Amino acid sequence: MRFLAACSRAPVDATPVWLMRQAGRYLPEYRAIKEKMSFVEMCRRPDIAAEVTLQPLRRFDLDAAIIFADILLPLEPMGIGFHFTADDGPVIERPIRGARDLEGVHTIDAASDLQYVMDAIRMVRHEIDGRTPLIGFSGAPFTLASYIVEGGHSRSYAHVKKLMYDDPVTFSRLMTLISEVVVDYLKAQIAAGAQVVQLFDSWVGWLGPYDYELLVLPHVRFVIDQVKGLGAPVIYFGNGASGMLHHVAQAGSEVIGVDWRIEIDRAWEQLGEVAVQGNLDPITLLGPPTAIEERVADIVKRVGGRPGHIFNLGHGLIPQTPPDNVKYLVDAVHRLSAASI
Amino acid sequence: MRFLAACSRAPVDATPVWLMRQAGRYLPEYRAIKEKMSFVEMCRRPDIAAEVTLQPLRRFDLDAAIIFADILLPLEPMGIGFHFTADDGPVIERPIRGARDLEGVHTIDAASDLQYVMDAIRMVRHEIDGRTPLIGFSGAPFTLASYIVEGGHSRSYAHVKKLMYDDPVTFSRLMTLISEVVVDYLKAQIAAGAQVVQLFDSWVGWLGPYDYELLVLPHVRFVIDQVKGLGAPVIYFGNGASGMLHHVAQAGSEVIGVDWRIEIDRAWEQLGEVAVQGNLDPITLLGPPTAIEERVADIVKRVGGRPGHIFNLGHGLIPQTPPDNVKYLVDAVHRLSAASI
Repeated sequence: MRFLAACSRAPVDATPVWLMRQAGRYLPEYRAIKEKMSFVEMCRRPDIAAEVTLQPLRRFDLDAAIIFADILLPLEPMGIGFHFTADDGPVIERPIRGARDLEGVHTIDAASDLQYVMDAIRMVRHEIDGRTPLIGFSGAPFTLASYIVEGGHSRSYAHVKKLMYDDPVTFSRLMTLISEVVVDYLKAQIAAGAQVVQLFDSWVGWLGPYDYELLVLPHVRFVIDQVKGLGAPVIYFGNGASGMLHHVAQAGSEVIGVDWRIEIDRAWEQLGEVAVQGNLDPITLLGPPTAIEERVADIVKRVGGRPGHIFNLGHGLIPQTPPDNVKYLVDAVHRLSAASI
Repeated sequence: MRFLAACSRAPVDATPVWLMRQAGRYLPEYRAIKEKMSFVEMCRRPDIAAEVTLQPLRRFDLDAAIIFADILLPLEPMGIGFHFTADDGPVIERPIRGARDLEGVHTIDAASDLQYVMDAIRMVRHEIDGRTPLIGFSGAPFTLASYIVEGGHSRSYAHVKKLMYDDPVTFSRLMTLISEVVVDYLKAQIAAGAQVVQLFDSWVGWLGPYDYELLVLPHVRFVIDQVKGLGAPVIYFGNGASGMLHHVAQAGSEVIGVDWRIEIDRAWEQLGEVAVQGNLDPITLLGPPTAIEERVADIVKRVGGRPGHIFNLGHGLIPQTPPDNVKYLVDAVHRLSAASI
């Protein structure tokens, strides 16, 4: 399978492609389910999560599936309540802002506490086994910490950074705890059948390299060290991190995801001997096929046929994306890359 | 004066420092005025704008003043109405989403249409002439276009990018028009007494390098070409652009501002023979003096005494910043850099 081959930088007949948030609101069949239940309920019902995971595979020639779940799911068994507002914004009910707030927060046993995710993974594997590989995932430590400390989305990440500066010990305790949870969660997903796992560091790009290297990178490295060697390659995706890819590479994952803010060949130079995933601007998919074609061709040309490229967006698909454009993209990646290999 | 010397990479006795949004809500004396009138009213009254510009200079040993104004001010004489919501979010009353929306939008005569800005500049120059240089500024073309098309702040820049892809001609007409306005506005500010001008490209980092180079950079280069050689060095600041600094450098400004998402020495390598402004994470100022000291020292060490560094934040000061920490920062920059030169 192209995707697994590319993860270990083996030659492929065409570049594999999957898309972050490929299971989501841009699909009418997803919205039909979403009308009947909440987002969190969709995650918690293995049959629904499995169905939603499979939806994009029925429409598009995708080279990987990614289990439908949310990066905040582990928070509940950790003792940190959360919910989503009507417009899908996450709200942490009791944000952690100091040492005291850590009381009562604890590690989890993902296999049982998040059994519904493992069940969904097993169901999807059963459906597509031998045809399409399945990716499991987790939020990376800083991204989860930023939700937990900020209490939701943020424009400035002022609370989580203030905690880092004012009380590095509490910040480090929180990151250590989250890292243990992430390791356990990823191991459980691999045991349930995830063939590759992705660590989403969606907000790490709001850190400067000094803070990243000193306070965050050691935790990411710990997670990857613990998970590596279990038979599932690790993809580490740092959104907004194009100015500090030399540090990101130190995290040690086999595959590194890059956003769309840097040319992929320049990124690769800084990353070294790894597979690279990315890096089309997701908003390109709102444009006409000619605009998509032009930008896919630029990425394919920059990669220049070297093994280990996994085509993806530089961030998640947005709900306004026309499904026809997704089809155009996936086919264009295969067509243009096959011609260049 | 250190700041002007550093703009032309001449040697200085200590690194000059000023801070984006140094005139702002973190100062109680600013808030005292803001209680009595709206933000836009403050901009439109030259005596108030001048007073607010001078406030931080009375407290801190800053090496430059920047005129108090808002990047959206030129929109009104262009025929594009805007206002601010109660929490200071900008709202464009009639966003431009297609060719038709451009009807009735036109260039300006900044010297008269925005005379209040020029009056404020003259008043400030009168007060601090010979002691502290004064910076004028404008939004850069893409940043202004993104407000005009999105209708305000955005998380995805989907509207402005969609316009770029779907209707590049209208996008280009809009960018051309904005660029002419920006040139006229900066020339008027220089004529009124601005000794340096900064182009704020606050949202350019949400573009990929392909789109930036093809659709945006030519307009920035036009603006800088037109303004260069009028006796006021140009600082071009691209927020979030650390993955495409080799393109940013092509815009041709004497000074380039970098955000906090890249180590300053790595940024400088890509920028070449220019002065560089930056690059402390503004949120550092919410931390204790030890955290500030450590991070200033890292920047000073990376610069290594080479001429042409202007110390600044990597983005604007946020309202929660304690003024004492600003004082600590400004003094630390002078102390640590003087020791390293």
